Amino acid sequence: MEIGKIKRWIIGEPFPTSADIHERLDNIRGLAIFASDPISSNAYATEAIMSVLIVLGSGALSLTLPLALGVAGLVTIVVFSYIQIILHYPKGGGGYRVTRDNLGTAPALLVAAALLTDYILTVSVSVSAGVRAITSAFPQWHDHRVALALSAIFLITLINLRGVRESGTIFALPTYAFVGGVMVVIVVGLVRYFGLFGAPPLEITPHIVPPQRDLSGFLYVWLLLRAFAAGCTALTGIEAISDGVASFKPPEAVNAAKTMFAMGVMAMSLFAGISFLSTHMSLIPEETNSILSQMTEAVAGRGFLYYWVQAFTMLILVLAANTGFQDFPRLSSFLAQDGFMPRWMANRGDRLVFSSGILTLAFLSSLVVIVFHADEFAMLPLYALGVMVSFTFSQVSMVRLMGRIGKLKPGEKLKTRFTEVVYERGWRWKQVLSAFGSLVTFVVLVVLVATKFLDGAWIVVLAIPLLVRMFYAINSHYKDVASNLRTRDLVGSRLVQVADVAIVPIGDVHKGTLRALQYARRLASEVRAVCVVTSEEQKERLLKRWNRFPELTGDVQLLCIDYDFRDVLEPVIEYIEKVKEEEFPDEMLTVVLPEFIAPSLATQLLHNQSANILRLRLRGYPNIIVVDIPFHIYSRMDMEEREQAEQSSDEVPSQPSGGDSSADTQASDAQGSP
Amino acid sequence: MEIGKIKRWIIGEPFPTSADIHERLDNIRGLAIFASDPISSNAYATEAIMSVLIVLGSGALSLTLPLALGVAGLVTIVVFSYIQIILHYPKGGGGYRVTRDNLGTAPALLVAAALLTDYILTVSVSVSAGVRAITSAFPQWHDHRVALALSAIFLITLINLRGVRESGTIFALPTYAFVGGVMVVIVVGLVRYFGLFGAPPLEITPHIVPPQRDLSGFLYVWLLLRAFAAGCTALTGIEAISDGVASFKPPEAVNAAKTMFAMGVMAMSLFAGISFLSTHMSLIPEETNSILSQMTEAVAGRGFLYYWVQAFTMLILVLAANTGFQDFPRLSSFLAQDGFMPRWMANRGDRLVFSSGILTLAFLSSLVVIVFHADEFAMLPLYALGVMVSFTFSQVSMVRLMGRIGKLKPGEKLKTRFTEVVYERGWRWKQVLSAFGSLVTFVVLVVLVATKFLDGAWIVVLAIPLLVRMFYAINSHYKDVASNLRTRDLVGSRLVQVADVAIVPIGDVHKGTLRALQYARRLASEVRAVCVVTSEEQKERLLKRWNRFPELTGDVQLLCIDYDFRDVLEPVIEYIEKVKEEEFPDEMLTVVLPEFIAPSLATQLLHNQSANILRLRLRGYPNIIVVDIPFHIYSRMDMEEREQAEQSSDEVPSQPSGGDSSADTQASDAQGSP
Repeated sequence: MEIGKIKRWIIGEPFPTSADIHERLDNIRGLAIFASDPISSNAYATEAIMSVLIVLGSGALSLTLPLALGVAGLVTIVVFSYIQIILHYPKGGGGYRVTRDNLGTAPALLVAAALLTDYILTVSVSVSAGVRAITSAFPQWHDHRVALALSAIFLITLINLRGVRESGTIFALPTYAFVGGVMVVIVVGLVRYFGLFGAPPLEITPHIVPPQRDLSGFLYVWLLLRAFAAGCTALTGIEAISDGVASFKPPEAVNAAKTMFAMGVMAMSLFAGISFLSTHMSLIPEETNSILSQMTEAVAGRGFLYYWVQAFTMLILVLAANTGFQDFPRLSSFLAQDGFMPRWMANRGDRLVFSSGILTLAFLSSLVVIVFHADEFAMLPLYALGVMVSFTFSQVSMVRLMGRIGKLKPGEKLKTRFTEVVYERGWRWKQVLSAFGSLVTFVVLVVLVATKFLDGAWIVVLAIPLLVRMFYAINSHYKDVASNLRTRDLVGSRLVQVADVAIVPIGDVHKGTLRALQYARRLASEVRAVCVVTSEEQKERLLKRWNRFPELTGDVQLLCIDYDFRDVLEPVIEYIEKVKEEEFPDEMLTVVLPEFIAPSLATQLLHNQSANILRLRLRGYPNIIVVDIPFHIYSRMDMEEREQAEQSSDEVPSQPSGGDSSADTQASDAQGSP
Repeated sequence: MEIGKIKRWIIGEPFPTSADIHERLDNIRGLAIFASDPISSNAYATEAIMSVLIVLGSGALSLTLPLALGVAGLVTIVVFSYIQIILHYPKGGGGYRVTRDNLGTAPALLVAAALLTDYILTVSVSVSAGVRAITSAFPQWHDHRVALALSAIFLITLINLRGVRESGTIFALPTYAFVGGVMVVIVVGLVRYFGLFGAPPLEITPHIVPPQRDLSGFLYVWLLLRAFAAGCTALTGIEAISDGVASFKPPEAVNAAKTMFAMGVMAMSLFAGISFLSTHMSLIPEETNSILSQMTEAVAGRGFLYYWVQAFTMLILVLAANTGFQDFPRLSSFLAQDGFMPRWMANRGDRLVFSSGILTLAFLSSLVVIVFHADEFAMLPLYALGVMVSFTFSQVSMVRLMGRIGKLKPGEKLKTRFTEVVYERGWRWKQVLSAFGSLVTFVVLVVLVATKFLDGAWIVVLAIPLLVRMFYAINSHYKDVASNLRTRDLVGSRLVQVADVAIVPIGDVHKGTLRALQYARRLASEVRAVCVVTSEEQKERLLKRWNRFPELTGDVQLLCIDYDFRDVLEPVIEYIEKVKEEEFPDEMLTVVLPEFIAPSLATQLLHNQSANILRLRLRGYPNIIVVDIPFHIYSRMDMEEREQAEQSSDEVPSQPSGGDSSADTQASDAQGSP
């Protein structure tokens, strides 16, 4: 098994199922693995707000800070809601499970479809953004950006296939290096801005950009809403941890909630810090020089820190894809467990991760990268919609859950499909907070769809209901399977009986077909060999050979079908159909198929694929059983070796009559004694 | 069978094998179908000679006629040799069979490889040349020339798949229209040149082209040889009829020989006429205006005749490909019959043609077109080498055969592998003629290889031995098969015996696996169900369900394999291997595989492919027999219908104990009586 070796070399030795607990994440790795997307958002979220406001001129950029604080406030609320979700759904599940539990299956599938779409886009967008950062530095690679993006996806896929703990270790360095670097920039920036500790003050050279348009009234408010919605890309990925609770060390829910909290604080402080500085330093968004880069340069010059931040920004942009790689396979596995996705997506691979989900995501996001030529600006209108759908529904679900909790008597337990809750104090204000959060995320969703619909958001609006339809179709099939397999009212005699007949299609009489006949005779008392003959010579030759082996063919009926065409499988299938329908309509009918097995794929192609084609055609009949009698072709050299081996183990010539092997053994024993 | 319908619509209703004789070609169609290549050569052969001579200036063009007459003489000799081949090999066979018969297998395979290569190139070259003619008229299509060439190949393939008679009918019109048109041009041209019947004399305006180089001695002779060799492209396709003798109406050989003769005369007169006129009209080869076009215009003006000749030149260039489509499949079928190509290439398709050969040629020539971007000038250095190899060896073979014939006594018969000959008078001069012909074609071959080697001929020089190697490798496999299947020393008891054991891998207990167990119990007295369990819960659930059906599972051993990994097929395969090796090393072991059959391919993908994977893995073992027990999944709606149908045919509830079906029938009879 060479393939097995290569696989082990690439993704490592398989973990036993019982090793699951050792493969759990500590909080440090957990943060690194789940938070790369929300933390990397800081590389561009402030800039996203400013890019909208600049339409009103550089004067309007002072609005960045209040809007950013608004976004930060929303993040706080959403993080809080998700901590509640984690604590109430300690087995994990996030938006899909919490919605299914509280609002029903249809909205839950809507959430799932929205999230899956978004995870695919997370991967495509972040990898493309990372590649853009790289090709800005090395413009000669610009023509290969699709190949670069696909390689990045390939690499992240491999790392994820190696297991969650290992990928956590790999992803920890760039994540913390990025956070650390930017933190240093912010602290130094603040120190210099406020002139603390006698630090040299920042040089601030305000650029004046005149307003492109003069908006007022509704349009002005709409612009502010758009700027706010643009800033809300900082929210993507917040939900990741809630899906992955089960991969934390026990107590899972507590550790996950702690990590969630740490992530919230970290992302918040970066976002607030960058927004504060960029506003007060009067930075202007430029196409070739990001706000973060301008800020770092102004604060610390083009030194070590500058390149550190630049390098790790590049890296974390690519690694943000990992949030998609964490959650897509997990969410798929939840859906698969519930019968809305192929069941095998719930199976864990060699390294205890949901390998098929990882590979599916890699495939789909690669497709998006190819279709959009790795241009993340073209993909951005499709992005972040799904996650807003999920935020809205999840928080409405928490409103509902808190309402149900509030109605419980102390000591009473409420058991739902996915969890169990008891009465808790403070349910009312948690409910209000989630309600407010859901309202805001809903408004953001509406703004995003309205402003980006024609730019591409329509694709997502179209894709989500199609996905939901697919979920239902898959579920319907699994319900069919369950009905078909049901044994509730089964008694033995109701199973279909087996006809005492075996049909053996043959093309010629040789060792391979004789073997098949021998097996068929063992299987049924009536054996019918069927041969399609296309010429008189063929028929004569066949009969002559047939009659040479009376002890094997004597009690077998030989049926020659004369046929004036050349597709010799047709009459065989027709004959089998006729026998099945007319003679054994209610029994299982056995067909014994002799089949050549050539030593290699190339030599296999030298044979016609009759046995394979027949098998495929006969699969359509519920009560036809196909028995494959393989006949291996050896090279003449191997054959001689085999024959010599046989002869040395069986020196005595066997008896001409059909004695069984034990008789053979006795005979050789008898002769072997002196 | 929708596919069957589409197929019939495209290629027509299948012909019965006995209709073969009605599908034979009359000589008119035979000429059209085989001669398109040699006849179309006239469109460019004269020009090919002139293009070489022009290096010496327009004065040297007067050498065209003697060289052309030399080529015509060679054609006459080769045609004569092939008429001899046809008459002596009335079952068809051409270069490959005549060489195998007289010089041995290795040179015959060399000839076959050379011819096959050349037929592929014939198709690619002529289609590309035809497309060039079309894109000269419509330059806007130039960017789509590969697509145009592939479409042309596709069309010719379809026509050929419709059968030899039908394609003969389709190809007859353009072939005869071309010949007729050019004939008229030549006759009118000669009449006007010689001023017969008071016709207006031709206006001859000689262009003087100065010599590019001044050659003398060896180089001058070499140039003349090159010009001669260039003219020898007119020889390609001459051998076609000799392969296809069997597709003529009886008496096959006589009709084929007549057609060959007619083709020779026709091609000769066109070639001689064009060469005479172009020399005496002092035409100069131009890049954008072919000699034939210049001549037609000078003789008949830009009128109806001009466009007629132009249009049918274009068409016959494309149709020249058909010579390849005739001979590649036939030659492949000869090789397949002799076990040097896959045997199925000798099978005739629905319309009695060698469909797989036609499709193989279509695929390979399309590949060449794609690789060379449909540029026939790039392909030409590879072209016409193979056919010269074949001419040389075939004629040497005839020298040998005539020698053997000359040694026969009158009345004595010589039976060779492919034919039977008697003494004939005139063997000596036939021998001399063939010897001379072979010498000349060999010189042409050497000149072609020497002048074109670096331009691409090396590809063919490399490909031919590789093909020969492939022929031998294929042959070796078929010899292996024959050795393996040999029944000469077979006696019944030497066949491997069948172990009285059936192994049933199961994943769960449900209707599908219970059916498999039922079948296995019918098959062997010892049945072992094998289940890999990965958790305690799964084991408990399995045992509970197992014990619910004592009448089906009572006498079956249930083997639970505890497994701490997730690739549950591994332990099953290991178990089967172990049982085979340790318990039944010398017997056939039966594995009964329950398998879900979903209603569509899409739903099939929702299941893991365990049964398919297991079957593929177990194919590797010579004495493991796999029995597929299909379990069809119906949609719930269909199921209800089926159940209702079952109930109406079997109103009485069956007994709880496992009675067989006859007991059931008795019981229902008993209850059915009043």
